[in-house]
Amino acid sequence: MLAKLTALFWHQGYGQTSMTDIVEASGVHKPSLYRTFGTKEQLFTKVLRRYLAERMTMFAQMIEQAGPGNDGVHRFLELFEADAVAEHGRDGCLMVMASNELRGTLPGYDFATDYRRQMRDQLSVLIARTVPEGQGESDIAQARTELFTTYLLGLHVVMRSGAEAQDISRSINALHVTVDGW
Amino acid sequence: MLAKLTALFWHQGYGQTSMTDIVEASGVHKPSLYRTFGTKEQLFTKVLRRYLAERMTMFAQMIEQAGPGNDGVHRFLELFEADAVAEHGRDGCLMVMASNELRGTLPGYDFATDYRRQMRDQLSVLIARTVPEGQGESDIAQARTELFTTYLLGLHVVMRSGAEAQDISRSINALHVTVDGW
Repeated sequence: MLAKLTALFWHQGYGQTSMTDIVEASGVHKPSLYRTFGTKEQLFTKVLRRYLAERMTMFAQMIEQAGPGNDGVHRFLELFEADAVAEHGRDGCLMVMASNELRGTLPGYDFATDYRRQMRDQLSVLIARTVPEGQGESDIAQARTELFTTYLLGLHVVMRSGAEAQDISRSINALHVTVDGW
Repeated sequence: MLAKLTALFWHQGYGQTSMTDIVEASGVHKPSLYRTFGTKEQLFTKVLRRYLAERMTMFAQMIEQAGPGNDGVHRFLELFEADAVAEHGRDGCLMVMASNELRGTLPGYDFATDYRRQMRDQLSVLIARTVPEGQGESDIAQARTELFTTYLLGLHVVMRSGAEAQDISRSINALHVTVDGW
């Protein structure tokens, strides 16, 4: 059921999703919803935490699959692009959407910070393979990780804006060219 | 009056801003608002067009001030950062916010595409100064322009998410390091 509610919020945004929409999508009556999930805010916190865990698993798999060196980064970008131009990719990222709408926080959950930290941790694994062994924490590796973390936020804005596949491709190509210079 | 309404939408988002809020902020009665601006959608189209024009003037001035070469790009980033960490900078960019909420379009105005195209045009002036004369349209110059265009979208997401000044600074530093590699 949380999967259905995730899709609902992701598509419509937080503010535009009413408790009535939630009742309809879940098929669960309001008193029972409140008992299980609490308020709309508390429900959305659960949705975001679940989404983030799934998203990080997806990124970890892509990074695992991508392999070593700068070639691995190119391969990661190809995997990312395949997902980005698929139909569901056009929704962008739920965390980015929510971050813009709610300014990054819900009571008790600073989700934008959490998201960026976890993305950074994932991407640092990919980036560590582009520098000599033992330099995964060097200034250059950290700057590359940060570059990718913030750039992917921008890409998700492009993806959600109704951009054509070729626009998304052009944005991703800019990263390929950057990696060629490493 | 459009300035007041811009601030209102920018802070609250489009969906969360009701006609009642608009009447209150503008001090103009509903019938008169409809006569002058049309529907809420049409009013928001005017707000976005006006904002975009002002924003592009601001970027043009920063780029003018930044000066030539890679040093000019570093200087541009310093100017951008000073604006980003100021109080109003924390709202991020109205176009990015609206793009996430409305998926980039209003009836008759594909504003996310318009915004990206105008940003790209501005930034291409800055980037052309980093390549040999006559190569401002080269693949490398275009990729650098695209990198900056998408990266700034990501930075605006960070800015609106309640990030600390040092987080914003770290994201901008990743671009400084990239430019050092040009």
